[in-house]
Amino acid sequence: MTGAAAARAGGRRIALLLEYDGTAYRGSQYQENAPSIQATLEAAINNLTGETRRCAFAGRTDAGVHALGQVAGFDTQSRLSIDELRRGMNHFLPLDIVVRQTRETALDFDPRRDATARLYRYRIENRRERPALERDRAWHVAKPLDTEAMRRATRRLEGEHDFAAFAGPYEGSTRRTLRRCELIGCGERLRLEMESPGFLPHQVRRTVGPLVEVGLGRMSEEDLGVLLDAARPASAAPTAPAHGLYLVSVTYDGFGFEPEDESGNGQSE
Amino acid sequence: MTGAAAARAGGRRIALLLEYDGTAYRGSQYQENAPSIQATLEAAINNLTGETRRCAFAGRTDAGVHALGQVAGFDTQSRLSIDELRRGMNHFLPLDIVVRQTRETALDFDPRRDATARLYRYRIENRRERPALERDRAWHVAKPLDTEAMRRATRRLEGEHDFAAFAGPYEGSTRRTLRRCELIGCGERLRLEMESPGFLPHQVRRTVGPLVEVGLGRMSEEDLGVLLDAARPASAAPTAPAHGLYLVSVTYDGFGFEPEDESGNGQSE
Repeated sequence: MTGAAAARAGGRRIALLLEYDGTAYRGSQYQENAPSIQATLEAAINNLTGETRRCAFAGRTDAGVHALGQVAGFDTQSRLSIDELRRGMNHFLPLDIVVRQTRETALDFDPRRDATARLYRYRIENRRERPALERDRAWHVAKPLDTEAMRRATRRLEGEHDFAAFAGPYEGSTRRTLRRCELIGCGERLRLEMESPGFLPHQVRRTVGPLVEVGLGRMSEEDLGVLLDAARPASAAPTAPAHGLYLVSVTYDGFGFEPEDESGNGQSE
Repeated sequence: MTGAAAARAGGRRIALLLEYDGTAYRGSQYQENAPSIQATLEAAINNLTGETRRCAFAGRTDAGVHALGQVAGFDTQSRLSIDELRRGMNHFLPLDIVVRQTRETALDFDPRRDATARLYRYRIENRRERPALERDRAWHVAKPLDTEAMRRATRRLEGEHDFAAFAGPYEGSTRRTLRRCELIGCGERLRLEMESPGFLPHQVRRTVGPLVEVGLGRMSEEDLGVLLDAARPASAAPTAPAHGLYLVSVTYDGFGFEPEDESGNGQSE
């Protein structure tokens, strides 16, 4: 999505604040012959405006991953107001996707490149039996977790490091700054929150996996430090499943949605 | 379910602590040609033990109503241990129903009549746009609620009253003791908790409806008091929808499941 595209569209660039349940989708990005958030949004735009438009996202989410505050952008020549666009899209969207807010942005706004920070949440249900109500919303870990050991391990990960061992394959520098990596909650309901200006592919799920290994006593905090220091892809490190992951919010400089009460979404305390 | 039935079964009476997502079911009780929690449980018992048994529930839940701590009982001649029964039933049950605990009880245990208290929770999402993630888990109220007015109104309802105006049709005394009626939370996520030795049919949903009217300013706290004092069925009073309701726990004298960390289930803070 370029500013030139919006100018050619003769129109406006619109940013959407999106919440979605990723269970029924093969991920955020368009895929041939499989439902995606992108295709569903583009169909709603088409139904509402008659236009065929491409949506761009702040962060790519995989199949089954949820969003509380994904940001998407598209161009339009429609004369509909910002509120009419929001209400109109929600009319056409299925019940598992909702536009929480709409904003008109600069014509060169790029939801992915302009983002200055992203916050992800990962939910764990730590209980003997599988959860019935939260079955698509949190990772079920049946054995008791040593949350204190996990907390100590999260501290080791905060800051600037080479996160090659905690990411999927990636061409380019794997140095990132993990501003926050915090385990919240106790008892059955746990959540890990991770904030960074930018994440590597699958970084959250590939961090939660080893942290749960620490919690289960299968890996020590030292083992985790060794992985981090090795700064090499660690194929043996487990990846946490997609359905516990939430893209909570995306931050921009000099641009923002109204504050909303997102404190608890995707987490039951 | 009578003690004689268990004795005839030559066996044991088993109590189950159940969690379920009521979305796909026409309610807890068996219904011809419609999925029910009861029929699904009985099929799991049959698959596991080969026996055809009837399940009895502590509380009847309607279509779409959820449970975190429903209690059910059945008789069996099976020699399977309590743990084997739990694991075996969970193997045969669909993912939206789970047995959290099993216990062997006295042969005359009756999950409904022996209950000394029940706790229900009702969840409300108070936000402009419909929730995508919690769509089947909470009532969406789009207009802002005056939670302080609602809190004052809940206090009026606590204690022993004739709750005829806050219940569905009922033959018999409509006097009940509402031990607790508390609105918890702020911002978008609210929940009402109601505890009583016994509830009238639809009492929770028919209490939440008028309380939300108070929160919207359509009804005053005095109007609510007038309804209560009238002690007559109030057909005009709105009923809150089923999908926000959770049966949280059932209490028995001299009988209990292990304490579990139920604090947050069905509520996201």
